[in-house]
Amino acid sequence: MAVDRLTVVGRSVPRLDAHDKVTGAARYVSDFILPGMAHAKLWRSPVPHARLLAVDGARAAAAPGVLAVCTADDLPVKRLAYGPAYKDQPILAREVVRYAGEPVVAVVADTPARADAALALIDVRYEELPAATNAEEAQAPGAPVIHTTLDRAGHFRDLDGLRPVAGTNVCQHYRYERGDLARAVAEADLVVDDVYRYPALSHHALEPHCAVARVDADGITVWSGTQHPFPVRKDLAEIFDVPLAHVQVVVPLIGGAFGGKCYTKIEPLAAALAARVRRPVRLALTLEESARTITRHSVVVRLRTAVRRDGTLLARECDVVLDTGAYADIGPRVATKAGSRAPGPYRIPCLRIDARCVYTNNVPAGAYRGYGVPQVTWASESQIDVIAERLGIDPFTLRERNLLKRGEEYVAGDTPLDGDMADGLGQAARAIGWGAPLTRNRGRGLACAMKDGGGTHAVSTAVVHINADGSVILLSGSVEVGQGARTALAQIAAETLGVPFEAVVVPAPDTSLTPYDHGTSASRSTTVMGLAVAAAAKDAREQLLALAAKLLDAPPSALTIREGKIAHGNRTLTLAEVISGHFGLVGGEVTGVGTFVPGEWSGSLGGATVFWETGMGAAEVEVDRETGEVHVRKYVSAADVGQAINPRECAAQDEGAAMQGIGPALFEARVGERGQLLNPGLIDYRVPTFADLPEALDSLLIENADGPGPFGAKGVGESGTFCAAPAIGNAVARAVGVRLTELPMTPERVWHALVSKGASP
Amino acid sequence: MAVDRLTVVGRSVPRLDAHDKVTGAARYVSDFILPGMAHAKLWRSPVPHARLLAVDGARAAAAPGVLAVCTADDLPVKRLAYGPAYKDQPILAREVVRYAGEPVVAVVADTPARADAALALIDVRYEELPAATNAEEAQAPGAPVIHTTLDRAGHFRDLDGLRPVAGTNVCQHYRYERGDLARAVAEADLVVDDVYRYPALSHHALEPHCAVARVDADGITVWSGTQHPFPVRKDLAEIFDVPLAHVQVVVPLIGGAFGGKCYTKIEPLAAALAARVRRPVRLALTLEESARTITRHSVVVRLRTAVRRDGTLLARECDVVLDTGAYADIGPRVATKAGSRAPGPYRIPCLRIDARCVYTNNVPAGAYRGYGVPQVTWASESQIDVIAERLGIDPFTLRERNLLKRGEEYVAGDTPLDGDMADGLGQAARAIGWGAPLTRNRGRGLACAMKDGGGTHAVSTAVVHINADGSVILLSGSVEVGQGARTALAQIAAETLGVPFEAVVVPAPDTSLTPYDHGTSASRSTTVMGLAVAAAAKDAREQLLALAAKLLDAPPSALTIREGKIAHGNRTLTLAEVISGHFGLVGGEVTGVGTFVPGEWSGSLGGATVFWETGMGAAEVEVDRETGEVHVRKYVSAADVGQAINPRECAAQDEGAAMQGIGPALFEARVGERGQLLNPGLIDYRVPTFADLPEALDSLLIENADGPGPFGAKGVGESGTFCAAPAIGNAVARAVGVRLTELPMTPERVWHALVSKGASP
Repeated sequence: MAVDRLTVVGRSVPRLDAHDKVTGAARYVSDFILPGMAHAKLWRSPVPHARLLAVDGARAAAAPGVLAVCTADDLPVKRLAYGPAYKDQPILAREVVRYAGEPVVAVVADTPARADAALALIDVRYEELPAATNAEEAQAPGAPVIHTTLDRAGHFRDLDGLRPVAGTNVCQHYRYERGDLARAVAEADLVVDDVYRYPALSHHALEPHCAVARVDADGITVWSGTQHPFPVRKDLAEIFDVPLAHVQVVVPLIGGAFGGKCYTKIEPLAAALAARVRRPVRLALTLEESARTITRHSVVVRLRTAVRRDGTLLARECDVVLDTGAYADIGPRVATKAGSRAPGPYRIPCLRIDARCVYTNNVPAGAYRGYGVPQVTWASESQIDVIAERLGIDPFTLRERNLLKRGEEYVAGDTPLDGDMADGLGQAARAIGWGAPLTRNRGRGLACAMKDGGGTHAVSTAVVHINADGSVILLSGSVEVGQGARTALAQIAAETLGVPFEAVVVPAPDTSLTPYDHGTSASRSTTVMGLAVAAAAKDAREQLLALAAKLLDAPPSALTIREGKIAHGNRTLTLAEVISGHFGLVGGEVTGVGTFVPGEWSGSLGGATVFWETGMGAAEVEVDRETGEVHVRKYVSAADVGQAINPRECAAQDEGAAMQGIGPALFEARVGERGQLLNPGLIDYRVPTFADLPEALDSLLIENADGPGPFGAKGVGESGTFCAAPAIGNAVARAVGVRLTELPMTPERVWHALVSKGASP
Repeated sequence: MAVDRLTVVGRSVPRLDAHDKVTGAARYVSDFILPGMAHAKLWRSPVPHARLLAVDGARAAAAPGVLAVCTADDLPVKRLAYGPAYKDQPILAREVVRYAGEPVVAVVADTPARADAALALIDVRYEELPAATNAEEAQAPGAPVIHTTLDRAGHFRDLDGLRPVAGTNVCQHYRYERGDLARAVAEADLVVDDVYRYPALSHHALEPHCAVARVDADGITVWSGTQHPFPVRKDLAEIFDVPLAHVQVVVPLIGGAFGGKCYTKIEPLAAALAARVRRPVRLALTLEESARTITRHSVVVRLRTAVRRDGTLLARECDVVLDTGAYADIGPRVATKAGSRAPGPYRIPCLRIDARCVYTNNVPAGAYRGYGVPQVTWASESQIDVIAERLGIDPFTLRERNLLKRGEEYVAGDTPLDGDMADGLGQAARAIGWGAPLTRNRGRGLACAMKDGGGTHAVSTAVVHINADGSVILLSGSVEVGQGARTALAQIAAETLGVPFEAVVVPAPDTSLTPYDHGTSASRSTTVMGLAVAAAAKDAREQLLALAAKLLDAPPSALTIREGKIAHGNRTLTLAEVISGHFGLVGGEVTGVGTFVPGEWSGSLGGATVFWETGMGAAEVEVDRETGEVHVRKYVSAADVGQAINPRECAAQDEGAAMQGIGPALFEARVGERGQLLNPGLIDYRVPTFADLPEALDSLLIENADGPGPFGAKGVGESGTFCAAPAIGNAVARAVGVRLTELPMTPERVWHALVSKGASP
């Protein structure tokens, strides 16, 4: 039986969570109330680096409603530290604090207000230590070494291995080299050498981190808006030394995540406090506290590129330095990703890459949409335009000449490129009007990038239950963070089963009830979980057809299934008739199981990716020479989605990503001073709003059904973030002749650049 | 690979829910709090039969905190009536009330107290109708016909069909006949003809009925302590006209059920009110309200039995009349069961059975532990002793002579008897000291009975997830009502998988997340769900062995698995090593699925049962001739469990059942007058307490591993209720020479019997 034409996949059905979100009925973790639930508030370090001398919590403990005042030593845990790369981060700081804002003492009280009030009564004595508050300081001779020993978490394999540099703050040094670099440089017609800077960013999901935990004889239950329920379960099992089956992580809807809710965050603290006070505990951070919990890496990229006169890229040296803050989080893998993607999606014979992930006394940096790639793409795609300008070659032509072609391997053993980037970039260029005349102070810019998508070593399992009335329950651990995963997976299940979309319901992930999934990141859900869902649905469909074959007295292969009906010639049975024909009138259901296990690791620049996520961007800007303000008049983002499961949602993902790329291109950045975050909240920290929308923002979906996912799908959602900054930067350069190397391109910076260039308004 | 000796099954491991229940941490439905949750209270009819004229809820609606005052017409449902046999029961009474205590108006308010207070402001005008308040009245000429039309629910198949008698109150007439009755009676040496009465009982689970409902764009979610989550889901889907997948029924721990939480009860009302007020609604009944929600059928049994001088049973006529109250609930099937089991577990050539289930204006009667069987066993086993006495044959000998033997079919097509009842009865008789001398006023009595176990057309599916650390999650829809189902199923899974018991966790049933199960009744969970669990575990085990075979380079058949380790010769791998060997370090799990689908219906006296649940009881009593009080000095219950999965819990089930049988034997009964229940609460209604324990109460578990369930298990838990009353009645007769035919055998009744017999104290 073959699905001969798509009926559900490829349709922009409304999102399953749309109604609840629009009406306010949607339930987030912070909406949970448990009987006897207490509330936790945190005392955070005011200084970036200090030795803790003493904590006096007696006055706080005596305050009204206070149930407990806990330091690290008071937590009933078997191990205090956790982290996906190194177990370097304590649940509460112990002996030393490593960044300003680090939680040191937790107060649990019967109301949030009483917990908050008691914080002021806590007396912490500490001795300040010299702090390294950026990666340069942290790598300087004599810098304080922030972690003297490192305990590997065991999640990394050989080929994407952890390589810390002993006795330094470098917790990961990713290196790659090929070809004879010196010779290539010597033979080159042009060598350009530039340094680009990308700022630290706050995720600022509208929903700050929140966890509700209960610990009793049934085990540990944590409700948390995490992107990684199963890895969080694993961490909790290790921290409390209990079997995985005794830990339940439940994830309701999430109000945005963007990587800031990857891996374990506040869940161990909530659970430890619940175990301590023997009551359920709710730990709800403020937005400002979330900004002190995790950040995007600020990155400095030095690129030295050798090129022939005709534009052929010969060699590229990439030095990438990431400030990962006080705890590594997933920083080492971000560094690997940034390093491996720094050369850009080009055919370059000689490469030398050094990417360093550096501990500093800043807020820990971790995953953030497209991690590593937007930062290095800002550098590499800016420099491609620099080269084009120096050689007098059209930037599109230069790129086209060097871009990897479909089927090419970046490194032997990599997954061959599964799309046509030159074609995609061409589409974006045409859409922006590349080459058409422009008025004064206007310019157009291009950029393109690729990223290995689908995650690393990431297993997904799905279960499909077909109920007695033909309605379907799809169990999947993929988290709905606003990206529409539930909807896309329901479409895949419906299409594969031959039932209407409306027949499929997707409950929220729950590690005790929904099957294993590694997590929701790396644009993986549609492709990787999608394959598991398709396999589970196929398993169920085959069982159904076998049951129907008996009832219809025909071989299963002769049956068709569509819109909830199984047909053989003129005879049709509804799914309900088939199921009750087998199980009887009372009830029963057909259960299918599907698992995706990724292939073995083999490549060396990020490895055998599940698919390549490629993004192409084109911007048209107008620069106000008097103020330096950059207006994005038009922005086109092209995403190669293989097959759009839900075109509207794919475009929405891509548009949202582009907007999230425009933020740091023009105005968005964390501002720090001596380790103090000066703009934790949304008053001082600018995120893009509707007012910042380009006059025209278009998303082009490239669909050649050439992805490895169900129905030829590839992942989407990160690629839109890659190109906005360099495309805008390139457009600014072409508009007014100034090249910025540091983001964001604020009016002040642009104005200064214009002035130093001597350009007149 | 074979399990060569049992390591988990057969051990009395502590119950999984023990700690929570002992410490008070156990969570029941009434412990749930949802944000914005409102509370419902019900105005109930004060009269047993009336026409509703008008409801004035205006004053109540204006009372403080009241959100809604709803009559049947205000409920946003597509159909008002529900029921497992007939859709005869309205969610709220409409036009007519049919029993005193029937809910007529619901008030929803922000607190329970405010809802309660508003009830007093409701003004209901009604016109009383003639009422039939017992089955005799309801069958008398000119009796009011309580339901003039009947809408079949569609759950019954042909062979256990519904046969109402049109134009009467008989909603089920079960008939069976074989042999030439007239000739057998004519040829008999003795014919006895007696009428026995068994009273209506209240279930009085310590936890009254409670449901919390939420209705929103995600669908309908109901938390309810129901024994039938999936059938309740089906009813809700029909009532609200939504797909099954849009209804979620979640069942936490239940504080006792005994059949009173079978099928749909208050769930539709809770859901309809939640839909009406657009807030979650909690509907928590008081104990007295639960007693007005469902009851055990009072039964009148007339038995006419023909027997040869040597004790050979020749023929039995059975007239069984059940008072099913105002709504049929599962009454028709109780009637079928009572009728089909009325002849007792004997070889009887000629039979005529008429069982009538009769509507009355009483509280609806439904399932109650062992339904139908204790009532008819009271009659049939009392009469066996009457026959023995009349013929001068030892009661044990008489039974032994007529009992069905292992492998015999009661009716051609029935499942052959899968145990040796004479042997079991002999064990019970020996344990009570049958035949040994007794002091004055003491006597011993025996009884035995059998029931088809495992439920009708009842499908069960289980899913087993083996986590990356070798711990196991078992998903099953079997409800923990206090019988230890979770524990027994975990033992079956652990034994089949070769992992320690402690490795297995069993989450609570949730129709959206745990696989299909018909329900928790008919002693079916250990056997029927047990087979599904064993199949799921075997599926997972085979997958594990296949993975291990690759790692150990050996055929799967050469591997053994025990205590979480897979061995081949000297080499062993833990389950965790096997799983991470396949899925990688990050995670993954092995998922097994198993389903039990019962065979086709074929017998005619209750059909091809999954197994026979047999119970044997022996009592020694002492009667106080001055007060008439009966003291049970010793009671022995024997249960053929095939293989005890958890011996302590099997014995606990059997002991609890025996105590629940002793209640109505001696003192327990609902007292009604003209349709008014006079003893709804535990002050006036006596349930057995520790003070009522026999001086010795023993349970004999008969284990021949001859059941169809996992490891040879059969169900247990109902059989203990069958024999207590007749064994005690027979002992009383042998002690003081008076034979009571009506339960309970209160001191008053016994004293009167002694007096009328002219016996001196």
